[in-house]
Amino acid sequence: EDAPQFNAGKGAVFNAKGGHELDASIMEGHTRRAGAVAGITTVKNPIKLARAVMERSPHVMLAAGGAEAFADTQKDIERVPNSYFDTDKRRQQLDKAQRDEAAKGKREARTGDGDAPTYFGTVGAVALDAQGHIAAATSTGGMTNKKWGRVGDSPIIGAGTWADDRCGVSGTGWGEYYIRNAVAHDICARVGYRGDSLQAAAEEVVNRIVPAAGGDGVGDDQAVVSGGDQQELRVQGGLSRHDFLCVDVLHIKASFIFVVNTRLPLSEGKRVEIRVITELFGMSPACGAP
Amino acid sequence: EDAPQFNAGKGAVFNAKGGHELDASIMEGHTRRAGAVAGITTVKNPIKLARAVMERSPHVMLAAGGAEAFADTQKDIERVPNSYFDTDKRRQQLDKAQRDEAAKGKREARTGDGDAPTYFGTVGAVALDAQGHIAAATSTGGMTNKKWGRVGDSPIIGAGTWADDRCGVSGTGWGEYYIRNAVAHDICARVGYRGDSLQAAAEEVVNRIVPAAGGDGVGDDQAVVSGGDQQELRVQGGLSRHDFLCVDVLHIKASFIFVVNTRLPLSEGKRVEIRVITELFGMSPACGAP
Repeated sequence: EDAPQFNAGKGAVFNAKGGHELDASIMEGHTRRAGAVAGITTVKNPIKLARAVMERSPHVMLAAGGAEAFADTQKDIERVPNSYFDTDKRRQQLDKAQRDEAAKGKREARTGDGDAPTYFGTVGAVALDAQGHIAAATSTGGMTNKKWGRVGDSPIIGAGTWADDRCGVSGTGWGEYYIRNAVAHDICARVGYRGDSLQAAAEEVVNRIVPAAGGDGVGDDQAVVSGGDQQELRVQGGLSRHDFLCVDVLHIKASFIFVVNTRLPLSEGKRVEIRVITELFGMSPACGAP
Repeated sequence: EDAPQFNAGKGAVFNAKGGHELDASIMEGHTRRAGAVAGITTVKNPIKLARAVMERSPHVMLAAGGAEAFADTQKDIERVPNSYFDTDKRRQQLDKAQRDEAAKGKREARTGDGDAPTYFGTVGAVALDAQGHIAAATSTGGMTNKKWGRVGDSPIIGAGTWADDRCGVSGTGWGEYYIRNAVAHDICARVGYRGDSLQAAAEEVVNRIVPAAGGDGVGDDQAVVSGGDQQELRVQGGLSRHDFLCVDVLHIKASFIFVVNTRLPLSEGKRVEIRVITELFGMSPACGAP
């Protein structure tokens, strides 16, 4: 969230009013505890607030002003002015989106028939520890030029984030289609109930069902799904309780699946994503991440 | 929502500030279109706003002030002062909840270890039309004394509401546990991927998994799940496109499953629930409902 190249925290996209509303969620698979926040405007790291909701409130999801009021009660949640999230690149994207929208007479806003939105750069991570426990987390600024307190899939447990005792998913894509297809939970349900492999389940949901419904599938699709399924993976021994195994990238068509694997080198982007979740849990990664 | 005996619309529970924040969602199974609103304060029928989000916005979920701003753009969405939702019975419930909380030193707010909350009376409905299309809708005031913009399961597609081409669920219970177990989608996934009967899937999720996690399962549990699965049901012929079959109640332990069935008489409560969804879709029910 602190890296400006991602659409989460610093560097988040602008909404239609020229501000930022951030969404994040986290889920711990073996306990099915979860926390989510939507419409955050003054919390530097929304994923930390989502974790606080999970650990220190009786609720799972808090929204907008109420979530900010909860943040007021949490001493370790760092606050910033909304302009902290500004970056020139994202402002240019907003300007372009609003010019395009004006040129079309706001057709998208009225009919939902607009072009694919710009939601790129959501940060997601799935981690598997030495005990086989899985956690998933997702953080985003949502869609450029979003309106009306739009909530995407990232703070929706089951849509953008899911973890259970053997499968975890953090997804990004055109959020509306991820919600309508319960993408994160559906991938894990296919693995758990039908015995699909994680790759086959993710391929089917992300590369077939979502595009068939009209979401993503566009040329510059950057949908990302992160998943770890301990049944498909050999957990290497010798790691302490708080070590996470590393995460590698497995391409499926236009998308990515993250599976736990310690063998391959990691790109810088993946290191950042791994750092997000390892920092979040206060854990030191077993390899790869800084 | 207009019937004060239900915790939805008029008669909704009070939040911790003595006001009302309403949540609702709707999903159309064969298209997987969906609409949801959370934290609504001035819309007389939140489920109608959820339908407007589904049909007239590019988004699926809108929250709080943003959702109200969207309502401002919709001529047919009736507005009311927040006090319209007040009822004496619900204010007494708030007073009791706050007295109980004060007596416990706000233990619940800090630790999440509180007593089972009062969320009873959510309105849900699932309908199946003569073409075999399923729709589900849920509307609620949430939990008495809820804080911080808490969002429950009712506006979460996959948690409180789900419909696909052969299964629909509208659930009520302790919302946090319904989100953490993706209850509505999970019931349909068990039916679709593992071949469970709807009753077996709902029993397992509502009566075993959720109580084992700590949600519901208490003596006065009033969890309700509504479901329709056309594979398990014989759709009677002779109904026009816009006729819904009637819905009956099948008890499973402390909970209810609604399945489509035209044979049995309907209680008044069920008539009200059926009317909610038939009015919502502008359809005349095939039988039973007024």
